[in-house]
Amino acid sequence: MEFTVDATTQELMGKLNLFMDECVYPAEVELGLHKPGDFNRPPIMEVLKVEARKRGLWNLFMTHDSRGAGLTNLQYAHLAEITGRSPFLAPEALNCSAPDTGNMEVLAQFGRADQQEQWLTPLLEGKIRSAFVMTEPAVASSDANNIQMLIERDGDEFVINGRKWWSTGAMSPKCEILIVMGKTDPNGERHKQQSMVLVPMNTPGVELVRPLSVFGYDDGEHGGHAEINFDNVRVPASNLIGEVGSGFAIAQARLGAGRIHHCMRAIGMAERALELMCKRALTRTAFGKPLSDQGVIHDWIGRSRVQIEAVRLLTLKAAWLMDTVGNKEAHTEIQAIKVAAPEMALWVIDRAIQAHGGAGVSQVTPLAHLWASARTLRIVDGPDDVHISSLAKHELRKYK
Amino acid sequence: MEFTVDATTQELMGKLNLFMDECVYPAEVELGLHKPGDFNRPPIMEVLKVEARKRGLWNLFMTHDSRGAGLTNLQYAHLAEITGRSPFLAPEALNCSAPDTGNMEVLAQFGRADQQEQWLTPLLEGKIRSAFVMTEPAVASSDANNIQMLIERDGDEFVINGRKWWSTGAMSPKCEILIVMGKTDPNGERHKQQSMVLVPMNTPGVELVRPLSVFGYDDGEHGGHAEINFDNVRVPASNLIGEVGSGFAIAQARLGAGRIHHCMRAIGMAERALELMCKRALTRTAFGKPLSDQGVIHDWIGRSRVQIEAVRLLTLKAAWLMDTVGNKEAHTEIQAIKVAAPEMALWVIDRAIQAHGGAGVSQVTPLAHLWASARTLRIVDGPDDVHISSLAKHELRKYK
Amino acid sequence: MEFTVDATTQELMGKLNLFMDECVYPAEVELGLHKPGDFNRPPIMEVLKVEARKRGLWNLFMTHDSRGAGLTNLQYAHLAEITGRSPFLAPEALNCSAPDTGNMEVLAQFGRADQQEQWLTPLLEGKIRSAFVMTEPAVASSDANNIQMLIERDGDEFVINGRKWWSTGAMSPKCEILIVMGKTDPNGERHKQQSMVLVPMNTPGVELVRPLSVFGYDDGEHGGHAEINFDNVRVPASNLIGEVGSGFAIAQARLGAGRIHHCMRAIGMAERALELMCKRALTRTAFGKPLSDQGVIHDWIGRSRVQIEAVRLLTLKAAWLMDTVGNKEAHTEIQAIKVAAPEMALWVIDRAIQAHGGAGVSQVTPLAHLWASARTLRIVDGPDDVHISSLAKHELRKYK
Amino acid sequence: MEFTVDATTQELMGKLNLFMDECVYPAEVELGLHKPGDFNRPPIMEVLKVEARKRGLWNLFMTHDSRGAGLTNLQYAHLAEITGRSPFLAPEALNCSAPDTGNMEVLAQFGRADQQEQWLTPLLEGKIRSAFVMTEPAVASSDANNIQMLIERDGDEFVINGRKWWSTGAMSPKCEILIVMGKTDPNGERHKQQSMVLVPMNTPGVELVRPLSVFGYDDGEHGGHAEINFDNVRVPASNLIGEVGSGFAIAQARLGAGRIHHCMRAIGMAERALELMCKRALTRTAFGKPLSDQGVIHDWIGRSRVQIEAVRLLTLKAAWLMDTVGNKEAHTEIQAIKVAAPEMALWVIDRAIQAHGGAGVSQVTPLAHLWASARTLRIVDGPDDVHISSLAKHELRKYK
Repeated sequence: MEFTVDATTQELMGKLNLFMDECVYPAEVELGLHKPGDFNRPPIMEVLKVEARKRGLWNLFMTHDSRGAGLTNLQYAHLAEITGRSPFLAPEALNCSAPDTGNMEVLAQFGRADQQEQWLTPLLEGKIRSAFVMTEPAVASSDANNIQMLIERDGDEFVINGRKWWSTGAMSPKCEILIVMGKTDPNGERHKQQSMVLVPMNTPGVELVRPLSVFGYDDGEHGGHAEINFDNVRVPASNLIGEVGSGFAIAQARLGAGRIHHCMRAIGMAERALELMCKRALTRTAFGKPLSDQGVIHDWIGRSRVQIEAVRLLTLKAAWLMDTVGNKEAHTEIQAIKVAAPEMALWVIDRAIQAHGGAGVSQVTPLAHLWASARTLRIVDGPDDVHISSLAKHELRKYK
Repeated sequence: MEFTVDATTQELMGKLNLFMDECVYPAEVELGLHKPGDFNRPPIMEVLKVEARKRGLWNLFMTHDSRGAGLTNLQYAHLAEITGRSPFLAPEALNCSAPDTGNMEVLAQFGRADQQEQWLTPLLEGKIRSAFVMTEPAVASSDANNIQMLIERDGDEFVINGRKWWSTGAMSPKCEILIVMGKTDPNGERHKQQSMVLVPMNTPGVELVRPLSVFGYDDGEHGGHAEINFDNVRVPASNLIGEVGSGFAIAQARLGAGRIHHCMRAIGMAERALELMCKRALTRTAFGKPLSDQGVIHDWIGRSRVQIEAVRLLTLKAAWLMDTVGNKEAHTEIQAIKVAAPEMALWVIDRAIQAHGGAGVSQVTPLAHLWASARTLRIVDGPDDVHISSLAKHELRKYK
Repeated sequence: MEFTVDATTQELMGKLNLFMDECVYPAEVELGLHKPGDFNRPPIMEVLKVEARKRGLWNLFMTHDSRGAGLTNLQYAHLAEITGRSPFLAPEALNCSAPDTGNMEVLAQFGRADQQEQWLTPLLEGKIRSAFVMTEPAVASSDANNIQMLIERDGDEFVINGRKWWSTGAMSPKCEILIVMGKTDPNGERHKQQSMVLVPMNTPGVELVRPLSVFGYDDGEHGGHAEINFDNVRVPASNLIGEVGSGFAIAQARLGAGRIHHCMRAIGMAERALELMCKRALTRTAFGKPLSDQGVIHDWIGRSRVQIEAVRLLTLKAAWLMDTVGNKEAHTEIQAIKVAAPEMALWVIDRAIQAHGGAGVSQVTPLAHLWASARTLRIVDGPDDVHISSLAKHELRKYK
Repeated sequence: MEFTVDATTQELMGKLNLFMDECVYPAEVELGLHKPGDFNRPPIMEVLKVEARKRGLWNLFMTHDSRGAGLTNLQYAHLAEITGRSPFLAPEALNCSAPDTGNMEVLAQFGRADQQEQWLTPLLEGKIRSAFVMTEPAVASSDANNIQMLIERDGDEFVINGRKWWSTGAMSPKCEILIVMGKTDPNGERHKQQSMVLVPMNTPGVELVRPLSVFGYDDGEHGGHAEINFDNVRVPASNLIGEVGSGFAIAQARLGAGRIHHCMRAIGMAERALELMCKRALTRTAFGKPLSDQGVIHDWIGRSRVQIEAVRLLTLKAAWLMDTVGNKEAHTEIQAIKVAAPEMALWVIDRAIQAHGGAGVSQVTPLAHLWASARTLRIVDGPDDVHISSLAKHELRKYK
C-alpha cells in the first residue's frame, strides 16, 4: 500500500482548494434561493464551470483516460473529497458529477465511436446532461435479476416498455440522453438477460411521471430523480451499447469508480460538517460559556476526527487496489467503504446539526441537505444490508 | 401509578381509530401533491375538520378544561399517539395541532376575557391559526436570558423591535395572531425580564423575511417556520398577556403539556413506521425470499417493539404525574421523555426507511417526512443535550 | 395498568433498605477477600440470613403462595430491585437467590407432597442449596428439542446418561439436590419428549467435571456453574417431577417469574452503578476540576437515568400482566424485558466503570463483577437474538 | 503514506504464523488450567520462549535498535497483530510483552551503561521480569501532576515513600526490578517535578499489598497488577534513570510505541474473535439451520470485517508516522488509535461472545478474557475520554 499524495495530486489539490475558497463557497448562498421543483441550475453554475475549466479543473474523474486529466483513482480520490465539501456545486462545476460521470465512463468504455461522438463529446464539454435509468418501482433493484422492463427487437428497432424510477438526472431541462437498462432476453442465462440502450429524451413514449423527493429535497443538483414511463418507445437498434446481453456486466463495471467518488465526497461532507461544528462551538455562547467548553461537544468533535481518518484510509486503500489490481480484487474493500463512509458521514453531520440547533435542520447551513444526501448513500447501489451480508458470506467462506 | 385506559378513553380511541381509517389515511395521498412553499393547506383539510368535529373529536387537547373534552393528560396522551400515526393531517383535523394548542392554552390560562373572546374563541373554532414567536437567530434560545427583542412601553402602547425565527405557524395564510416574547425589563431580575404580547399579523412593521425549511420540507402542516423582522411594531398596552415580567413563567407553563403531545405523537409515528416496515418485509422479495425471512430485519422489528413499549410507559407516567402532582413534580420525567421519545422514533423510522429503499426517502411513503419531524424534536424547546445535562445535575445533587 | 407501590410493599421496601444499609453494604467488604475457586460462601452469609429472617425479609420471592410472603409479582419486583443493588449478598441473605428460587417454585408447583417434604422444606429454610441441570455443551440450548441426555426407565428406576454444563448451583458444597432435565421419549411429540427428575448430589455416577468461569469470576454466590457428567446414574422412578413428558412445560413455567427477578435485579445493579458513578464524579478531581464538571459525564449520568426509568416501567408492566392475566399473556413483555434490562444495565455499568478508571475494572468496586453478571443475562434462558426474533415474528403476524 | 508489507516483514510474518500454528495455539489449552492467584506462568511458557528464540522471533519489539531485530514500528506492527491473536502466550513467548517491553525501551534509551548491564541484559534474555510503577490509588493518574509519591534525596540515597497500584508485572515471582516514578521536586516546574528510579524488588520497605483483578482475571500473563506500599524504601542515588526531573519526559517517551503494540494486538484479538465467530456460525445448529444462515450474524460478521480493516489502516499510519516524522508529529494518530482500536475490538469480541452463548463467557473459549483485556485498554494510559477531549481541543484550535 502506498497512499502518498504525489506532486501532481498535491498541485491539483492546491488549485482546487483555491477554487473552492474563491469561487465555490461564496456561490453557496445562491443555493438558499433555490425554488423546490425548479430543475434549472442556479445561474452561477455556468460561471463556475467556465472558471473551473480555465483553471485546469475539468473532467478530473476520467481516470486512466486521456480524455480526462489522466489521473489514477487514488489521485482523483483526494480531489473528490474536496469537492464533497460543497457537493451541490463543486462536482458539477468540475464536470465531475453523478450520474454524468458514470454515464460518460460507460460511453467511453463500451460505446461505439459514433455513439461517443454524439453523446460523450457534449457530455465531456458539459453542454448536455444525461440520466441513468435502471431502478424499477415494482421490484427490489438490489437483485438485477428482478428487472421487468422489456427491450424487444422489432426489425431495425428496439421497442421499450416498462416503468422506471430513481432515474437520476432525468428531471434536468438539460438532460438529452438516457441510458436505459432492460431485458432483451427474459428467459436467458441469469446475467445475460439484460441490455443497455441509448434513448434520447425527446423520443416519443418517454413520459416523465413525477420527480421523487429525498427528505423534501428535489436533488436538482443531480438533475432530480424521475419516475418515467416507457410506452412503446422505439429507438434504432444501433442505440444498443455494447452487445445484446451485456447490460449486467456494464452495470457492474459502472459501479466501482462511482463508489470511490461517492465515498470520498462523503468524507469531504463530514470534514465540512466537522469544520462547521467546530466554528459553531467556538462562537456560540449559552449559559455563559461557549459551547466548545461545555458538555458532550468534545466527544462529538474528537470522535468525528477519529472516524473520518479511519474511513479515509479505507477508501484510499480501495482506490489504490482498483488502480493496482483492478475492481474485482478490490471487491471487499469497495463493499466495505460503501457501508463505512455514509455511516461515518451521517454520524458526524448529525452531531453538527445538533450543535447548530434550528440552523442545523434548515437552509441556513448546508448540514440538513448534506445529511439527506449521505442518508441516500446507504440505499443507492443496493442497500447496506445487502453489502454487509455479502461481506459476511465472503468471510464465512474462508472457514468452509 | 395507574395507567389503565379507562372507558372514556377507550371509547374515544375507538372513534379516533375509525376516523383515521375512514378519513385520514385515505386523505394522505393529497400530501404527495403538496407544492413546496405553498402554505395553503390541502382542500381536504377543512373536510376532515368538519368530520372530526361531527364525530366528537375536537379540541381534545384542552385537558382539565371544559372548553375542550375535559380529558386528563393521561387520557389525551393515548389519543395524541393515534394522531401521531398521520401527523401531517390528523392533529390539525382535530384542532389539536401545534403551535395552536400551546397558544390556546396560554390564552385560556393567562389571557383576559376580552383577549380570549377575540383570539381564543376563533382558535377553538379552528377558524384562524396562530404563531408562537420566541426563538431568535442571534442567540442560543435554550437559555431564555439570551433573548434580545425589546418590548418598550410608550404611552398606551408597546413598541417592539427585534428579529425572530422559527416562528412556527406564521407562514400560514390563516395565521392572524402572534404571541411574541421579548424583554420589557432587560436589566431586571433574571426571570422577570420577559413579557408576552399579542401582535396581530397585519400590524405594520411585522415583516415575514422568509420561511425556514426542515430538511427539505416547508412544514406547511404547522404553518411553516418564519423568520420575522419586527421594526417599531406598535400594539396597545392591553395586548400584554398576564403581567409585565411574567413572560418566562408563561413560557415554562406552556411547555409541559406540549411535551406530552410531542412525545406521544412521536410514539404514534414510530408505530406507523413499524407497521410500514412489517408490511414491506412481508411483501417485498429479493434474492428469492421475502425480506421478512432475511438478514437483520427481525432485529430491527423486534427491537423497535421493545423500545416503543418502554418509551410509551415513560411518557404515560409523565402524563400521569402532571395530572396528579403537577408539571413541576413531573419535571424529571418530562425531561426524560423529551430525550427518549424522539431518539426512539428516529431509530425505528430510520430502519423502516432502510427497509423501503428508495421509497423510504421519498414522498412515496410518509417515512422521510416523519424522520425529519422527529429529528427536529431533538432540538425544539432546547436541545437534548441541555435536558440531559439538567437531568444529570439533578441526579448529582442527590449525593452532594 | 396500575403500578402504584402499595402500603405492604412500601413497608417491606423500607425494611429492606434498612437491612441493606445496616447489614448488607457493610458486609460487601468480605467479597473482596473471596478466593476464586472456593465455593464456600463467606461466613457473614449465615449471619445475614438469620438477620433477614428475623426482620421478616425471607422467601419474599414465593409470590401468590403462603409459604413465602404471599406477595404479587408486582410487589416482589420492587423488592428484587433493591436486592439487585448488592446481588452477590442480598438475594441469598433473603433466601431469594437463583437457582434455588426457580427450583423451589418447581417443587411447590409440580412436586408431590413427599418430594416437597424432602427437598422444598430444607430449601425454604435455607439449609441446603440446589442446582438446575438442563443446558448441554454439545447443542444449542435455546432450542429445547436439541437436548440429548437420556432418562431411561429400567424397572423401578430411571437411568440417566449424558453431559450437562452451566448447571448453576452445583459447585456449592451445600448443594444436595439436582433437578435434571432429559429425554424420556426421544421420538415422541416435540414438546413431550422431556422429563425432569430429582437427582441427589451424592448419587453414584454424578461427576462434577469442572466449574465454568464467567469473565474470570467463579460465580460462587450462585453456587458456581458446573460441567457434570452423568454416567449410568440411577434414581427411583418416584423421583420424577410431575408426569413423564412434562419436562418442557415445567421448564417454561419456571422461566416467567425468574425473568422478572433477573430484570428487576439488573435495574438495581444499574441504580447502584449510577450512584457510584455520581459519587465518583463528585469526588474525583483531574485537571483542576471534579469530573462532575467535565466532559461527557453529564451525558452518561443523564442518559442512565432516562434508560433506567423506562426499563423499570416495562418490567413492572410485565410483572403486573403476570399477576393479572398470567404468564402466557405477558409473553411479549417478558421477552421485551429479557432484552431491554440487561442492555440498559450494561450501558450504565460500563459508563460507571469508565468513570472509575482502574478501580472500575478491579475488585475495588463491585462494578466489574456487576458487568459480568449483566452480560451473562444476555445469554441465559436463550440468547437475546432468539427473543428478538420471536418478538419480530409476533409483530409480523399482525399483518399476515 | 506507504504501508506495503516489505519482504523482511513478509518473511517474519510467515515464520510467526507458523510458530503460532505449531506451538502457540496448541499450548493455549494450558491456560484453561490456570489457577487464579498463582502468578507462576504455565510450564509451557519457557518451552515457547526457547522455541521462538530458535526461530528468530525474539525481541522483535525493539524497533530501530540492533539489540532487537532492527525493525521499524511499521514492520513490527504487523507482527504485533499476529501475537495479539493469542495475547496470553505469544507476546511473552517472543519476549515482546508489556510491561517489560516499555521498561526495556526506557533502559535502552535513558539508562546508563551499568544500569543496562545489570537490568536490560537479563530482561532482553527473558531471564527476569520487571514492573512499571506509576499509578496511585488516591489520585487521577491521567494527570501526571497529581502524583504524590515522594522520592527524597538523603546523602547518597533516595528515600521513597508512597502508595502505588496497577503496578503491572510486580506480582510475578520472576519480577526483580521496579521502575518507579515519583516526585523529587514537588514544588518545581509542572513537568520537571517527577523522576524515575530503579528499585530492586527485594529492597526493604517494598510491600506487595495485594493483586488487583481485571474483571475476574488476575492477568498473570502480564505479571499481575500489584498494589504496593513504599515505606522508607532506600536505593542508591545512582539508581536514578536519566536526570532528576526527567520522569515526565521519560514517561511520555515510553508511551508511543506501546500504544502501537497495544492497538495492533487489539486488532489481532478482533481477528481471532471474528475467526471464532465464523467457525461457530458454520458449525452450530439451532432451529434446524446453522447460525450462519440465520438472523443478525451476517450483520455482526460483515461489520466486524469493515471495522477491523479501517482501524488497522489507522494504526499502520500511526506507526508509519512514528517511523518517518517521530512520535510528536504522530500525536493525533496515536491518540486516535488509542480510542479506536479497543472500541472496535470490544465490539467484535462482544458479538463473538454472543454467538458462542455460554462458551463465550467462560474459559472454554478465549473470548471473555480477550474482552476483559480490551476493556482495560480504554482505561490504561489515560481514559479514552481524556484522549478524545485532547483530540477535540486540537481540532478546535484550527479555527481559533
